[in-house]
Amino acid sequence: MNPGDRVRVERADRSYEGVLLPSSTDQQLVVKLEGGYNVGIDREDAAVDVLEQDVYEIDGASGDEDGGSAVEFDEELPTIALISTGGTIASTVDYRTGAVTAQFDAEDVLRAVPDLAGRANYRGRVVANILSENMEPPIWVELAEAVREEIEAGADGVVVMHGTDTMQYSASALAFMLETPVPVVFTGSQRSADRPSSDNVMNAVCAVEAAKSDCAEVMVCMHASESDDRCALHRGTRVRKNHTSRRDAFETIGADPLGEVDYDSESVTIRGDHQQRGEAELALAADLEEDVELLKFTPGMDPAYLDVAEGSAGLILEGTGLGHVHTDLIPRIEELIEDGTTVVMTSQCLEGRVCDRVYDTGRDLLEAGVIEAGDTLPGTAKVKLMWALANADSVPEAMETSLAGELQTRSTPWN
Amino acid sequence: MNPGDRVRVERADRSYEGVLLPSSTDQQLVVKLEGGYNVGIDREDAAVDVLEQDVYEIDGASGDEDGGSAVEFDEELPTIALISTGGTIASTVDYRTGAVTAQFDAEDVLRAVPDLAGRANYRGRVVANILSENMEPPIWVELAEAVREEIEAGADGVVVMHGTDTMQYSASALAFMLETPVPVVFTGSQRSADRPSSDNVMNAVCAVEAAKSDCAEVMVCMHASESDDRCALHRGTRVRKNHTSRRDAFETIGADPLGEVDYDSESVTIRGDHQQRGEAELALAADLEEDVELLKFTPGMDPAYLDVAEGSAGLILEGTGLGHVHTDLIPRIEELIEDGTTVVMTSQCLEGRVCDRVYDTGRDLLEAGVIEAGDTLPGTAKVKLMWALANADSVPEAMETSLAGELQTRSTPWN
Repeated sequence: MNPGDRVRVERADRSYEGVLLPSSTDQQLVVKLEGGYNVGIDREDAAVDVLEQDVYEIDGASGDEDGGSAVEFDEELPTIALISTGGTIASTVDYRTGAVTAQFDAEDVLRAVPDLAGRANYRGRVVANILSENMEPPIWVELAEAVREEIEAGADGVVVMHGTDTMQYSASALAFMLETPVPVVFTGSQRSADRPSSDNVMNAVCAVEAAKSDCAEVMVCMHASESDDRCALHRGTRVRKNHTSRRDAFETIGADPLGEVDYDSESVTIRGDHQQRGEAELALAADLEEDVELLKFTPGMDPAYLDVAEGSAGLILEGTGLGHVHTDLIPRIEELIEDGTTVVMTSQCLEGRVCDRVYDTGRDLLEAGVIEAGDTLPGTAKVKLMWALANADSVPEAMETSLAGELQTRSTPWN
Repeated sequence: MNPGDRVRVERADRSYEGVLLPSSTDQQLVVKLEGGYNVGIDREDAAVDVLEQDVYEIDGASGDEDGGSAVEFDEELPTIALISTGGTIASTVDYRTGAVTAQFDAEDVLRAVPDLAGRANYRGRVVANILSENMEPPIWVELAEAVREEIEAGADGVVVMHGTDTMQYSASALAFMLETPVPVVFTGSQRSADRPSSDNVMNAVCAVEAAKSDCAEVMVCMHASESDDRCALHRGTRVRKNHTSRRDAFETIGADPLGEVDYDSESVTIRGDHQQRGEAELALAADLEEDVELLKFTPGMDPAYLDVAEGSAGLILEGTGLGHVHTDLIPRIEELIEDGTTVVMTSQCLEGRVCDRVYDTGRDLLEAGVIEAGDTLPGTAKVKLMWALANADSVPEAMETSLAGELQTRSTPWN
């Protein structure tokens, strides 16, 4: 038996039928089941029948020098660049410890998801191999440069495989850094490939379909519901991971998703305003001012926390309600601003706009020089401020203007 | 004309018909319209017709010595204690500056909301008169003591009027501090009384109805939808203000609301498990360890922020996903724990449970001594840790146990 064969595996009174995939350990067989899920089966005492040879063409080599595709080149198909940063979608189970560690590169993912075959020509590329809680601004810069290079080299779309923990921050970073004429689609997986409920196959397939679409935006493509029926396409600057474990954890905040990909029909639907393929010219402004912090205000907050921002280039406040903090903090905030720190207000409510003209506290904050981020999400505002401090002519103007769909203009917060 | 008269006011080509209310300034008339909303009208050039005298009995005096009711005592009716802490529901527009400042006490609210008449006998009491961003743990203690005193004095239910910004924190504080045999209902207002869309009347009426119900829990009662049809009743420890300005901004996270109050029929519906009236004996454990901070992790976070927690009694981390931070921070977190700081992990996803057994980062955090808060909301976890550090025999056990409905037990995070 070889990877790519259709097999039936019997073990411990259970039977599995599907395509054998390459495994990273000798102790297990990985079988792609009919439903699209991969299952890991202990090789010991397992009986394997080969039902059909070479159902999928799987390249066992570790990739060509140019990151070559594991499927045959087809001139009729678009070329999609797969960029891996790590995370569950690019991981397999490490059975020695019982936990999940990142160990796939993009080439491996392609081999592990045979359903990607026939949809595009692929180029694989590894920018990082980290769990996304370890993502850092310098890697955003590397990622943005990699995406630009892939587009320059002719990619018709880019899929970024990323851990889900901080995907929204990375997607925001690329949305501010990059002017893109093609789709840039982040996708990930909430359940590892060995789980019956893994979402990695459907998310990867839908992300590739989205990358072939006409929506030239930085998007996040993840399950739209708990079913395996469709993925939602979220604007990178408006998306948030709202659940620790559900497959449909990602939601667009304060708006409908940009669109969706139907898994069965493979059709991509984009709604509302969006940038069309070819509309923008490829450009990269990847400089970041990293010395920006985010501080969430809660009752009883020690004012000493504000001292940490002393000398910082920027500070995002996650205030309460329309954008408030305890009034005792305002003089200290004013000092920070006078000393050169750009302070931007967002709301921990997450939905709705900051509006500091309504109450005394807010007006005092505005008088102290605090900039309002409208309905920009706090995490997105942090990334944006990093970008604006390094690139914008006027930082206040940039923070109050929508640069990448992060700020939805409304005349009043009472919507 | 006198407060309590039904009047028609004509001014600037507009006509208003309703009951005249006491006004805090000479420059304006405040009229309660048929729909239940109060409108402020500039007295200058206003023509007033008195249509009917003394439609409502309104006591113009500033309250009896015992905080006496502005409506006649009725032995058939339950007694509800109204406790005011300030906020929009207890405020009127300050036309001199164009902004809203808190200036009502509970007695004023009762006079401003004639619809409360006939539903209960009232006792009014002012604990604070602050905008809720200025709420602090010592005021929670005063509030809890006031609630206890009112219940001891025979109140059949308590309504706490509170600004919406930090209502969820105060409600959580009372839920941990207080064992209550009667309902304790927080309510507030997202729109001030002079706005046609003010929610103060319906919220106050529904809160009083909830306070008369059999659900002896600490609850939040706010608009359930954008319509004026019903209020939702949220468990104080599971509620969150999720929108800066909408009237239905408050939502129960990870569960359905405890119940609802139908505005028209005045019926209160409570679903699922809850503490019945009379089930618990009145008790107060109001000690708080105030030296607890909350820190939200975002990519690029300066490790120096952790230094602020040095020597603190407790630290709530708002991690990513299942409860992660950058692995570089873990040694510093371990040091804090070794030095005596209790560190508790929550998730910025808000929905779903923290589970640090799945990934390496999480297991390292557990090994460092971090306590998991399950699906306790980050803000609630901060209040709970303040309470647990001052009251619990075992803080880790307390943080991993549901004390006031704040933690919903599930066998697995993959719900």
